[in-house]
Amino acid sequence: MASGRMEFHAETIMQHANFSFVLPNDVNMEEVFDLSNYDRPTKTLILLHGLTGTDTDWLFGGVAQEMAIQYNLAVFMPTTGNSFYLDRGYPGGNFGSFVGEEFPAYIRSTFGYAQSREDTLIGGLSMGGYGAIHTALAFPETFSACVALSSALRLYEFAAHEDTSVMPQAMIEDVFGDVTKLVDSDRNPEVQYRRLKASGAAIPRLYLACGTEDALVRANRQFRDFLKAEGADFAYDEGPGRHNWTFWNSYLPRGLAWALG
Amino acid sequence: MASGRMEFHAETIMQHANFSFVLPNDVNMEEVFDLSNYDRPTKTLILLHGLTGTDTDWLFGGVAQEMAIQYNLAVFMPTTGNSFYLDRGYPGGNFGSFVGEEFPAYIRSTFGYAQSREDTLIGGLSMGGYGAIHTALAFPETFSACVALSSALRLYEFAAHEDTSVMPQAMIEDVFGDVTKLVDSDRNPEVQYRRLKASGAAIPRLYLACGTEDALVRANRQFRDFLKAEGADFAYDEGPGRHNWTFWNSYLPRGLAWALG
Amino acid sequence: MASGRMEFHAETIMQHANFSFVLPNDVNMEEVFDLSNYDRPTKTLILLHGLTGTDTDWLFGGVAQEMAIQYNLAVFMPTTGNSFYLDRGYPGGNFGSFVGEEFPAYIRSTFGYAQSREDTLIGGLSMGGYGAIHTALAFPETFSACVALSSALRLYEFAAHEDTSVMPQAMIEDVFGDVTKLVDSDRNPEVQYRRLKASGAAIPRLYLACGTEDALVRANRQFRDFLKAEGADFAYDEGPGRHNWTFWNSYLPRGLAWALG
Amino acid sequence: MASGRMEFHAETIMQHANFSFVLPNDVNMEEVFDLSNYDRPTKTLILLHGLTGTDTDWLFGGVAQEMAIQYNLAVFMPTTGNSFYLDRGYPGGNFGSFVGEEFPAYIRSTFGYAQSREDTLIGGLSMGGYGAIHTALAFPETFSACVALSSALRLYEFAAHEDTSVMPQAMIEDVFGDVTKLVDSDRNPEVQYRRLKASGAAIPRLYLACGTEDALVRANRQFRDFLKAEGADFAYDEGPGRHNWTFWNSYLPRGLAWALG
Repeated sequence: MASGRMEFHAETIMQHANFSFVLPNDVNMEEVFDLSNYDRPTKTLILLHGLTGTDTDWLFGGVAQEMAIQYNLAVFMPTTGNSFYLDRGYPGGNFGSFVGEEFPAYIRSTFGYAQSREDTLIGGLSMGGYGAIHTALAFPETFSACVALSSALRLYEFAAHEDTSVMPQAMIEDVFGDVTKLVDSDRNPEVQYRRLKASGAAIPRLYLACGTEDALVRANRQFRDFLKAEGADFAYDEGPGRHNWTFWNSYLPRGLAWALG
Repeated sequence: MASGRMEFHAETIMQHANFSFVLPNDVNMEEVFDLSNYDRPTKTLILLHGLTGTDTDWLFGGVAQEMAIQYNLAVFMPTTGNSFYLDRGYPGGNFGSFVGEEFPAYIRSTFGYAQSREDTLIGGLSMGGYGAIHTALAFPETFSACVALSSALRLYEFAAHEDTSVMPQAMIEDVFGDVTKLVDSDRNPEVQYRRLKASGAAIPRLYLACGTEDALVRANRQFRDFLKAEGADFAYDEGPGRHNWTFWNSYLPRGLAWALG
Repeated sequence: MASGRMEFHAETIMQHANFSFVLPNDVNMEEVFDLSNYDRPTKTLILLHGLTGTDTDWLFGGVAQEMAIQYNLAVFMPTTGNSFYLDRGYPGGNFGSFVGEEFPAYIRSTFGYAQSREDTLIGGLSMGGYGAIHTALAFPETFSACVALSSALRLYEFAAHEDTSVMPQAMIEDVFGDVTKLVDSDRNPEVQYRRLKASGAAIPRLYLACGTEDALVRANRQFRDFLKAEGADFAYDEGPGRHNWTFWNSYLPRGLAWALG
Repeated sequence: MASGRMEFHAETIMQHANFSFVLPNDVNMEEVFDLSNYDRPTKTLILLHGLTGTDTDWLFGGVAQEMAIQYNLAVFMPTTGNSFYLDRGYPGGNFGSFVGEEFPAYIRSTFGYAQSREDTLIGGLSMGGYGAIHTALAFPETFSACVALSSALRLYEFAAHEDTSVMPQAMIEDVFGDVTKLVDSDRNPEVQYRRLKASGAAIPRLYLACGTEDALVRANRQFRDFLKAEGADFAYDEGPGRHNWTFWNSYLPRGLAWALG
């Protein structure tokens, strides 16, 4: 399986951005279950890690390589630390624009992948689940679908100063800015969704999943209810599970089957 | 999880040897199921890839990282191409001495792991399953146990010129030398085992597993029967399965549980 | 030459920290000019990159490997992005404690290097030159010497809002906090030096160099004058040169010769 | 600078092939001396390492990154161990076809580089210098020029059993086959050159350099004399120097200036 790790100078974050990747361009067809995925051009999946994680997580702990083979997906796994994949609003701090704009453009120019909205997906787990939703809704012309697992949709908690167990308050403010304005800002996927709907633009399809033993399940159900009320094109899965690779490696395939189906 | 990839100049193979590794020295104890593995010092597992593979295989396709966390194992994954981890008998071609001697010594001096026979295991899949068995029996003072999955114990087939579907005959001879002498040589684990037994030396414990749909199951059963007849300290598992990661990722944990139990 | 790249979970920065390294434990003695460096145990150099850079910079653009061979140095090259290697004062944002404390401790426990102050050096270029000075003075019990090249000693400029050409103001504040307090804070190496001197603790020896065509030469001369006035144990080199690898690759060897001499 | 390391399954060598690369697609134009190199499309250089080396050599010890920036070159550095980049004549052992055919084709399909003969160069040092010459002459439709440094043109020595100091005889035979037939075989660049000339095909331009203190200088002069007698389009440089990075890092730029001029 073709795979690797590389880095390039990214303007939006004024840094060398590291990423891992798997490319299904040397696949042994005998290993492929569903050959019909190879009757079409390779699609692209940008896959985001969680808090404290890094670009190799989905390769070492997760099933990125297996998904790449099975679904004929070029999988690109960037890292921008604990940024929540959000713009901080100054040059060099625009992690959201990096993931949603500069990185897909770099993939396109370097590898020729991610040529069209239809062929480009984004996914992630935990912080990366939030990042996948937020990025898909911020760049709806780039992504046609999103697979968000155990998403850290903690905005209401952050705003209410309820959760500092995982992230210290100072880090939350570093990332999200003034938390009193958070719920009404475009860092809230609900706000993003409503704006997008009002604009009449095409909205990426959303797949969400969360384990019933995961502390984040409440926030995920809340977002599910929101999407339902809005009549969104989405799917929501729940099942026994906690905040770990067993859950993510079980539900990433389901999400991709739905998103690519 | 601490992990990486490095290289060093290895005398036995006159090359820079690449290897991947996972070190359980930054583990979050909340992720660990069985804390008793952390009451003892970290053990070391050298894990070998199959034909056509490379050092990242067990990380990208396999559960090396999961095993490292669960069993408090430092896992080192070398590559020496399609060498079958065998000595060719000239300086620069001694892939067996590399895996069984120079590599463990380098791990010991660089990382402090693999200090004792009791703490050092070897495992592998397919060509690497054969390599694990052969290396354990060639260096019984280094390894206390071996976990060999879907092992390419094709010696009788090679000798009979029966199998050139996977490896061309010229490559077989490049690797194994004169195949007419193969069955009686120390490249045959049966020969190795008998010699070791006769010498009275401590013999590494062996775990073998093979899928019932794997073409290699016949050769694995034959070696199982041999070990049984010899009264060896070994375990043999069989179950529905083919020659793929689904099988290996299911049986590596079983093998390690047995070897470390 | 033994070299690699790895990552581990670092508490101080709540992230997986990437680093590159070169280990002189497989050196061919025929390549070594000065064998006397090999009569003593291997020393350790932590080498820091500049703004926008990453952990591979000193390997790909710089002479890290050559220095490792020549001086029998284990060279470790971490990255914490554009953090200036400073603590932000909350858990997960302590990049200074990472470079000066957690990282050397991890090197010590994983590789056995950096066992003593005498054997541990720190160096860097530009942002990393500042980082090397600041870290050496913040952790004087860890480092005995520092090699700082083209150091970004821009504190007075930052405080005076004079320089936003390289870093946007918002990024400066993200990194340095309230710039009106900067000059009097322990982010100013002059403040650090005076405190250390007053405490009577051993102070790391400092080597500084800057190119005469480098915009940073003024700030470096200012720090040189400060050290002179304080009677510090330091060396300062200047020569024709700009802010590039030609200068750094020429002066790192001089700095190491001085620091190790 | 964009750079990385990856691997893919290569048919010709039945292995996962590792390679390092530098891509000048994120270059800061302020670092570039000669902007005219950026008025044309990026060219491609395949750069080969020496005996015992690996794919990172030209990055860690050599000036691959500097050359990539200066000359707007995508540099790809493969490794096939100590194979001398020669075909062994059986599937899985065709290291020459790998470097000259499958690898450039993979670069073309994955990155879009190496689209034309005019844009594709090959270079190397020592074993890789021989490999560069041999590969260029074996695949003249792929490469327009070759930069061969301190080339291990030891064929006459091997044939005469004169040199086993660097390579044991068994390894020589593993690599080159029957050495009594070596001088007249297509492993001899002189034979390759004459055939190519007779065929009327376009012949890659050749740059050769060797240090006067290098034991290989005699063989390089001999090949220079051959090329001169044949009226080849080539350049030959000699200068004080031994078999080390000081020489290679000094003459690679000269060779590229000639080849690209």
